[in-house]
Amino acid sequence: MSEHSKYNHCKIVDCTVRDGGLVNNWDFSVPFVQDLYESLNEAGVEYMEIGYKNSAKLLKSDGSEGPWRFLNDDFLRKIIDKKKTKLSALVDIGRVDEADVLNRSESMLDLIRVATYARDTAKATELVSLFHDRGYETTINIMALSNVMDNELNESLAIINDSPVDIVYIVDSFGSLDPDDFRYLVEKFRRALKNKRLGVHTHNNMQLAFANTLTAAQLGVELLDASVYGMGRAAGNTPTELLLAKLTKPGYDLRPVLGMIEKHMLKLREKEEWGYLIPDMITGMLDEHPRSAMALRASADRDNFTGFYDKMMTPEVFGAKS
Amino acid sequence: MSEHSKYNHCKIVDCTVRDGGLVNNWDFSVPFVQDLYESLNEAGVEYMEIGYKNSAKLLKSDGSEGPWRFLNDDFLRKIIDKKKTKLSALVDIGRVDEADVLNRSESMLDLIRVATYARDTAKATELVSLFHDRGYETTINIMALSNVMDNELNESLAIINDSPVDIVYIVDSFGSLDPDDFRYLVEKFRRALKNKRLGVHTHNNMQLAFANTLTAAQLGVELLDASVYGMGRAAGNTPTELLLAKLTKPGYDLRPVLGMIEKHMLKLREKEEWGYLIPDMITGMLDEHPRSAMALRASADRDNFTGFYDKMMTPEVFGAKS
Repeated sequence: MSEHSKYNHCKIVDCTVRDGGLVNNWDFSVPFVQDLYESLNEAGVEYMEIGYKNSAKLLKSDGSEGPWRFLNDDFLRKIIDKKKTKLSALVDIGRVDEADVLNRSESMLDLIRVATYARDTAKATELVSLFHDRGYETTINIMALSNVMDNELNESLAIINDSPVDIVYIVDSFGSLDPDDFRYLVEKFRRALKNKRLGVHTHNNMQLAFANTLTAAQLGVELLDASVYGMGRAAGNTPTELLLAKLTKPGYDLRPVLGMIEKHMLKLREKEEWGYLIPDMITGMLDEHPRSAMALRASADRDNFTGFYDKMMTPEVFGAKS
Repeated sequence: MSEHSKYNHCKIVDCTVRDGGLVNNWDFSVPFVQDLYESLNEAGVEYMEIGYKNSAKLLKSDGSEGPWRFLNDDFLRKIIDKKKTKLSALVDIGRVDEADVLNRSESMLDLIRVATYARDTAKATELVSLFHDRGYETTINIMALSNVMDNELNESLAIINDSPVDIVYIVDSFGSLDPDDFRYLVEKFRRALKNKRLGVHTHNNMQLAFANTLTAAQLGVELLDASVYGMGRAAGNTPTELLLAKLTKPGYDLRPVLGMIEKHMLKLREKEEWGYLIPDMITGMLDEHPRSAMALRASADRDNFTGFYDKMMTPEVFGAKS
């Protein structure tokens, strides 16, 4: 029901393995990730974020995580037959070992994204400069924007504006934002960042992830994060299949991703939980990190929604923000 | 994350029993419906649509349906302790026996809504006049708007403008519309209907039901259809709990509806299927009735999404529209 041109500037970044890994501790099999790469490539999806490029040593890993938690180029080279879809990795500040990062010309990765809180923006731009100098496309993803005061955000955007980063992300970490909020943020980012392209990463706590993404896309935002069948932490993300169905961009094909859902995601969803769930809706509504909702779902009290609501509405339990 | 005033004109019409009945053949127990009424009343929800007021005789019922399919005032009086939340019923054209309809002063019902296709608008306004004369609040719900040509819709709206109906509904029967479409339709309806209030009924095939409802609400639409935990045919409706969480209207309380979900809806969802499912996403994307998706889900082939997609994309199978 939409014109064919209003989304042609958009590119999809599929985060199934990276954000979905937060659900299953990155326990994806090699055939799963290979099938995902093939299906995204056939679907015309521009980027696949295949995991985190943090250091196992710096994160003091106990070795329980799947290999997508600490990406290694030799491993990637063995398993991925690289085609048109580019590969992306996310890094966290203070968790990257510079020695792990090859020059892009020797790497399987094309895009490296730096996740940061607004307060750590200076550190983020330092990291970005490193990746930029080694030839990668780069993004800075400012998390938890809904919890940042305007003066701090302005400062953060000013630092970013002077950095070599290519793309700046608006991240709705808590799934608390609505299309009006996204309109406000896109306009604000555009005013502050003269020569940067923009991206969005959404969560579906309030069933607004897809609508928020479309809103941003219509305002010219270029990189749209998504995941197949919405797989991502807690309420999950904008479903990749909905973007393919809706954007009607020449070159996109929904069918391969439907095949991926049919072959892998239905089974996975039976074993692992993500998507619209009442506790995540409550944390979204309250603009809170979903950790309390995830803890509830992992407990025997998992369906006690009123009890959870009462706790969250009680200021002395509600926590740090009160 | 929204201002507190922009939704104060809104009223919620909970359709769990009526639209949800399309999922389970109206097989809701009396205690279920009583608990639902109590929870909606405590939550401050303005209307509960408790079923259809069609004639069992005219519909040639085989008697398998629950009592909410053919509402009877004596029955309602026995089971519902009427409080602040008003009761609503839906009727279909050609299926109402006038003799079944009491004057409002003797009835448990407050609101009667007439569902119609645009082509049957004249018949709908005739029915509306009957209910209007008997003292009810009335609505006309124009279904399948996405499949109506503009000249036909204009004619339909002109007829409605001259009728005594109070409220006119924009109904996204196939879940194919997006917020831009709703903006277009609300503006169109407002231009054509000088003295009518507006309502919206959405479906969640593309995960846009809630966003579409919010878009309409911000444009001044008054009656917002919803159902608890989104229960409704195929992809279901806007969840009542999300409206209560988001509209932040004085007098609304989310907690009682969370209690209803916890007590009844989780179990019901295990037995019956509704919500975001790939086949319904495909019919939504193609602006088609969900019947083919529902048939697929009832078959042994239920998870064959690529096969279903191929069929739907093949013009000679795609059916009547090609």
